[in-house]
Amino acid sequence: MTKPLAISMGEPAGVGPDIILMLFARRGERALPPFIVFGNIDFLRSRAARLGLDIAIEAATAANAAAIFARALPVWDIAGDVPDQPGQPHDAAGAVVVAAIAEAVAAIQRGECRGLVTAPIHKGALYHTGFAFPGHTEFLAALCAEDDVVPLPVMMLAHEDLRTVPLTIHVPLKDVPGLMTAELIHHTLRVMDYDLRRRFSIADPRIAVAGLNPHAGEGGAIGREDIDVIAPAIEKARADGIDAVGPLPADTLFFPPHWRSYDAVLAMYHDQALIPIKTVAFDAGVNVTLGLPIVRTSPDHGTAFDHAGKGTASATSFAAAIALADRMTETTT
Amino acid sequence: MTKPLAISMGEPAGVGPDIILMLFARRGERALPPFIVFGNIDFLRSRAARLGLDIAIEAATAANAAAIFARALPVWDIAGDVPDQPGQPHDAAGAVVVAAIAEAVAAIQRGECRGLVTAPIHKGALYHTGFAFPGHTEFLAALCAEDDVVPLPVMMLAHEDLRTVPLTIHVPLKDVPGLMTAELIHHTLRVMDYDLRRRFSIADPRIAVAGLNPHAGEGGAIGREDIDVIAPAIEKARADGIDAVGPLPADTLFFPPHWRSYDAVLAMYHDQALIPIKTVAFDAGVNVTLGLPIVRTSPDHGTAFDHAGKGTASATSFAAAIALADRMTETTT
Repeated sequence: MTKPLAISMGEPAGVGPDIILMLFARRGERALPPFIVFGNIDFLRSRAARLGLDIAIEAATAANAAAIFARALPVWDIAGDVPDQPGQPHDAAGAVVVAAIAEAVAAIQRGECRGLVTAPIHKGALYHTGFAFPGHTEFLAALCAEDDVVPLPVMMLAHEDLRTVPLTIHVPLKDVPGLMTAELIHHTLRVMDYDLRRRFSIADPRIAVAGLNPHAGEGGAIGREDIDVIAPAIEKARADGIDAVGPLPADTLFFPPHWRSYDAVLAMYHDQALIPIKTVAFDAGVNVTLGLPIVRTSPDHGTAFDHAGKGTASATSFAAAIALADRMTETTT
Repeated sequence: MTKPLAISMGEPAGVGPDIILMLFARRGERALPPFIVFGNIDFLRSRAARLGLDIAIEAATAANAAAIFARALPVWDIAGDVPDQPGQPHDAAGAVVVAAIAEAVAAIQRGECRGLVTAPIHKGALYHTGFAFPGHTEFLAALCAEDDVVPLPVMMLAHEDLRTVPLTIHVPLKDVPGLMTAELIHHTLRVMDYDLRRRFSIADPRIAVAGLNPHAGEGGAIGREDIDVIAPAIEKARADGIDAVGPLPADTLFFPPHWRSYDAVLAMYHDQALIPIKTVAFDAGVNVTLGLPIVRTSPDHGTAFDHAGKGTASATSFAAAIALADRMTETTT
């Protein structure tokens, strides 16, 4: 029997639960693989009723989830007080949100589930639980620590054959030149190369590295970082056997025939990685966390409180996140 | 009789002359409007023969160019020694390259031609002529000075309904935060608004302004420039009656349904403006200079020495530049 994917419910006041329920209702036409939701079953039944979805929801374990999936949404029930209040985070629900993620990771670590798809969380609703991580990904990294060594996760945005990784993420643009060290570039290239082989089954990954400055600095005429920082890091990676190429001018790199000749692109900052994905993928981009011992994907949107409980949220990115987690874990079923 | 467009020949060692000749040969199927080339006629005949193009080339003036266009390529002949050496710039040709641009601008200023399409130049080949401008555009601005006031040109990249303007251009990324003053943003928005009305016949232009930082700074959590610099400049422009909106997160702004609701996007730096254009437009993007008393477009590629004289250069962007200059000057024919 196929092992299920694990889905963490995310913030109950947001659109995550809506989308999970809507996708389950259309699992046949969307050809979705079996999954089990880690969350509160009473809340999920209430939200399904609010959305007018005629679906059965059953308490389940990872072992029987795939069998249940044909007739009902399998839920790994996490007890707690989770009121169905779209758009209004509720303190008591925070502990359930955190436990859902932790238990999903534990089930994957025990080998009972294949990989994790996370619905968006709202950090503000979690602080009173003692959640002290900058974000979802850092929490997952901590849960995946082995012998007290916390892995350094790498964020990738993926849509079909376009995969981009921002070296720096939620930092002011003015801080980017100081943060982009040769060590960080080299480490990120190693993680990308390793996971493109392990998770994407690409035998000889080719990685393009975008320059920081216009035209990748034009040989030093427009800034030195491309020569002084990026080029040596690429050279070091190549000495390790990683097929990294660059620094390449970021504008012409995203001319589609150009990026299609690479398996992934390492960009230096947030917008350099996200603009091409949003331009090409519309709302179908997927967030993938590399560098962890488990597979984790997520949709590239947030809690979108204004759409919660209405059935108006787009399920495109979440469905793509499930499909990608499925493909990334096929060899481990 | 329709007035012709003016095309400056550009660097003879590059692909500009090739593309002009190739486009003339296919002017019928491409439905190109009449144009006159400012350049050296002996060189153009030699290059046409090298490319195996069976076309007639005649000396012409702006007045008879449109009539000649059906049977021969009209050339405003500029005397000089211009050897046909693909890939190898020649000192003696520099004076002809500079004069071609200056005479084309003068013809437009006299009302004999409608607008200018410039083929790429190679600055290195022009320095010995005394050409001391950072680039093509600054030279054109100087030629367009009135009463010693040199206009401040604004570069726009255009492809169909996507139009982006980089506030800063060929500067190191680390210098962008310091260069993006509220004054520069306000001035650029004024030029964009004015030329979207005057040149693009858009009655009430809507302009999106991209933020500098990820998520446009998330209310100050990721950098202050979006709040301290960009927002006040937008407010000032709105007080002037300009419909500018922002700062908007640059990634979601380039989600196509989003940018399609604006007539143009002001980006803060080179790659923020050029990545979406290259991603969407492939090689059909056009460079438009706003803020000048004349219309000027150009292809978004350079001299591409390795393709020169071979007939292998793509004419897509140059053809789009001609078509756009034609549309932008239709009302003045």
